[in-house]
Amino acid sequence: MSRKIEILDTTLRDGAQSRGISFSVEDKCAIAATLDSLGVDLIELGNPASSPREAEVFSRVGRFAVSRACAFGSTRRKDGHAADDLRPLAASGAPVAVIFGKAWLYHVREVLGTTPDENLRMISDSVAWLRAQGMRVIFDAEHYFDGAREDAAYAHEALSAALSAGAETVVLCDTNGGAFPDEIARRVGEACAVTGGRIGIHCHDDCGCAVASTIAAVQAGAVHVQGTLLGFGERCGNANLSAVIPNLQLKLGFSCIPDDAMAGLTFAARRVADVSNISLYKNMPYVGSNAFTHKAGMHADGIYKSTRTFEHIDPALVGNSRRVVTSELAGRNLILRKLQSIAPGLTKDSPQTQALLEQLKSREQEGYTFEAADASFELMARRAIGRCRKHFEMLFYKTIGEYPVPHDNPAAAIVKVRVDGRDALEAGEGNGPVNALDDALRRALTRFYPRLDESYLSDFKVRVLNPEAATAAVTRVLMTSTDGKNTWSTVGVSGDILEACRIALEDAIEYKLMLDDKEKLTHV
Amino acid sequence: MSRKIEILDTTLRDGAQSRGISFSVEDKCAIAATLDSLGVDLIELGNPASSPREAEVFSRVGRFAVSRACAFGSTRRKDGHAADDLRPLAASGAPVAVIFGKAWLYHVREVLGTTPDENLRMISDSVAWLRAQGMRVIFDAEHYFDGAREDAAYAHEALSAALSAGAETVVLCDTNGGAFPDEIARRVGEACAVTGGRIGIHCHDDCGCAVASTIAAVQAGAVHVQGTLLGFGERCGNANLSAVIPNLQLKLGFSCIPDDAMAGLTFAARRVADVSNISLYKNMPYVGSNAFTHKAGMHADGIYKSTRTFEHIDPALVGNSRRVVTSELAGRNLILRKLQSIAPGLTKDSPQTQALLEQLKSREQEGYTFEAADASFELMARRAIGRCRKHFEMLFYKTIGEYPVPHDNPAAAIVKVRVDGRDALEAGEGNGPVNALDDALRRALTRFYPRLDESYLSDFKVRVLNPEAATAAVTRVLMTSTDGKNTWSTVGVSGDILEACRIALEDAIEYKLMLDDKEKLTHV
Repeated sequence: MSRKIEILDTTLRDGAQSRGISFSVEDKCAIAATLDSLGVDLIELGNPASSPREAEVFSRVGRFAVSRACAFGSTRRKDGHAADDLRPLAASGAPVAVIFGKAWLYHVREVLGTTPDENLRMISDSVAWLRAQGMRVIFDAEHYFDGAREDAAYAHEALSAALSAGAETVVLCDTNGGAFPDEIARRVGEACAVTGGRIGIHCHDDCGCAVASTIAAVQAGAVHVQGTLLGFGERCGNANLSAVIPNLQLKLGFSCIPDDAMAGLTFAARRVADVSNISLYKNMPYVGSNAFTHKAGMHADGIYKSTRTFEHIDPALVGNSRRVVTSELAGRNLILRKLQSIAPGLTKDSPQTQALLEQLKSREQEGYTFEAADASFELMARRAIGRCRKHFEMLFYKTIGEYPVPHDNPAAAIVKVRVDGRDALEAGEGNGPVNALDDALRRALTRFYPRLDESYLSDFKVRVLNPEAATAAVTRVLMTSTDGKNTWSTVGVSGDILEACRIALEDAIEYKLMLDDKEKLTHV
Repeated sequence: MSRKIEILDTTLRDGAQSRGISFSVEDKCAIAATLDSLGVDLIELGNPASSPREAEVFSRVGRFAVSRACAFGSTRRKDGHAADDLRPLAASGAPVAVIFGKAWLYHVREVLGTTPDENLRMISDSVAWLRAQGMRVIFDAEHYFDGAREDAAYAHEALSAALSAGAETVVLCDTNGGAFPDEIARRVGEACAVTGGRIGIHCHDDCGCAVASTIAAVQAGAVHVQGTLLGFGERCGNANLSAVIPNLQLKLGFSCIPDDAMAGLTFAARRVADVSNISLYKNMPYVGSNAFTHKAGMHADGIYKSTRTFEHIDPALVGNSRRVVTSELAGRNLILRKLQSIAPGLTKDSPQTQALLEQLKSREQEGYTFEAADASFELMARRAIGRCRKHFEMLFYKTIGEYPVPHDNPAAAIVKVRVDGRDALEAGEGNGPVNALDDALRRALTRFYPRLDESYLSDFKVRVLNPEAATAAVTRVLMTSTDGKNTWSTVGVSGDILEACRIALEDAIEYKLMLDDKEKLTHV
């Protein structure tokens, strides 16, 4: 049986310390849900003492992932009481506490300003108090490698203080990211031998070696790995779990997440990127859109002879896909499968399949992506095979934005639509031109389709695609809609943000009307 | 004396095989000049047989970097003649030829479709012919690690064939990127021992370990390293030289580039990114803009006590710089230091410090973040201590968005500003209301401040903060502006995207006008 490696994701804590990353409560819950589905053992949610909104994260995530939730904090203050300083961790409702403390005498002296003995007491008091509250405790030994270089015996004492007080695992942290894999492996081996405890590893990528160092630590005996799914983290980031997990599980025979979750890795990585409003780094190992993309002609030729010629693993194992840049053969099977779910008779060679492939290619060149916009893809496919009723036509709109704000709302819109030959002109208002346009369009169409009232936009994301052109850049808008029962996503791309919104809005409304038509058919 | 490691940069060859990268002749020459200034030993310019414009690259680069230029190609074809197939390499004028050949029997059989013996003759004939033309020859043993796994003896024979025929260095290529550092080190050590030749290493990043594998190869005896300055390359990319070089030279005592060139590393990386029209990955080790950026309050405090507390090297060694970002996580000390840079007399207890802290807190609750908006932070701080001249007042704006698009531009704006008691009314147009507002505002203000013409928006990001409210959500806009000499970032938050843009735009323009005022003062 393969050795189990416990995975702790700290996207929501160390990852939140990335410059440019800022999570709302909603974002945190969405990311925790994604990590939960992926079967990551432990999810570090943040420091419950840091702000009141953290409490909401703990309570909401506790509802679906109670056994995985970790509360993060430091050991008690010098000359303080664990019961005073650590109460928020115990009160968070999380079953696991992760606390960090010093393992480097230089930091004990210069940053804490206390004695080596008091530092050890801070560690053991804190672990013992949390254990007495019934929590599982993980101890993060900050700056472990710098500390071991200065005084290995003291670094070992810090670990032993935590273990003796009841810590389940002690984690060697390369906080400054300056160590290389060979040193990491050697000191992990030593720590295993000297303490006899469960050893974990926490690496940063300042030398570009965090993934390799993490692997080396596991090979040297570590049984617990900390990192972030996309490598977010202070400075150059933490060890990238989307590379660590498949490296350990698919290539080295360790067990990290459930086997049947592995094919969800790419989806999970893209979802976390979307929620974080960043573009997933295209070259990212395993999950990046280029990870299995072949460009050189010789590589592409080789791939057609045998995928083994230029691929180290089968991309399907991690839910990614092969892409050959010169021909768009990549997604053909997938697209065919989607088309067949609408029109089962279609084959690879049907003219409709060809037409849809052509259209997909040109849309992607404009900046569309359909990975997160299933409703827009389905509507495009239905249009390509003539199975899409058009429920309305927008004849025109005008939006007006004003400053200073005239009344309650700074923006207004006028829209004229045509439905079955009948026109409707309607006004709307909102706290911006997009909001006003949405309001006017729904008012106009609800006259014809009263059930449209059930649906509303539940999410709305804007991404500027070629920002070097600044406010004249191309904008992609992703919208998620819901009617309480169904949830669907649509996309629009244009140089004009309003126009991009119109495209995504029209699709969102068409999709709802199509769902209602289907329901009527079923009830007949 | 430290051991010299020869560096070969293949940005212009393997790097050009990155998806999304496409170099013109100008681009290639600019990148070669950057690598030349950095003192990289060898610059692989491309395959001179692949297109006529390559000839121009060889001739132009030959003028400034003749001793570094490498021409790339494959060994002669099976049953062919080296004199026919390799003539373009000899004719390129480059002093060094890099040719690749097969070291994996599986590829010899399946891709080449020839015998093991003929493959060895292809290698030795090709090397010998190029040597006879007076070229230095480097042999890239493609798929070396896969080959050695299948048949180590044959892989060694391939290396020996090249060395016996006069190759200066034989390079073990992990073409599919599937090997880990421990295997790389072991096989490099074996190859050194068995062949007695100069061994090089060429890694790909499909496991996220290319940098670590390259380091491990050098520690095992490799004396030649191939990679790309920014990690460009097929699929997940090649070993990132901007991490490999400082790792080897600053931390492990090898010599890669001239010592006095090291401080130019960050500049070189940013220049190659600019020429390639990509954004440099912010978290990139050593050279990324976040590589020495501290966000968590405790890290920021530690850095002010001693940089050693949270930095593995001094950023100045590679020409990068430290940055401490402003956020509620950063804490009071940091904010005080920023205020003191404007008004040195202020203390922690000054009412202005308190007022600014209060304001920062309430702004962050509204959704502002200042960590990526240093100009907006400085303006807010200056306003808090009364050291900010207001250069203009916006009296009103109106924007009009229309569909179908009336003429060239779908949006128009009207803006009225007041400067020193004089009003100006101006119209603008653009491909969206934001673009039109920017246009109108700049037209109006340039009448009063002609130097405003020098500045423009270079980046523009939109983030929707509480997307559950969909189009009524709060929007945060981050803008980066430049006047060619300075670059600054500003932020605006509002329920209305236009209003958020107005706030960020006004700050962007105010900051430029403040810079111009300062410059005038300096010249008096």
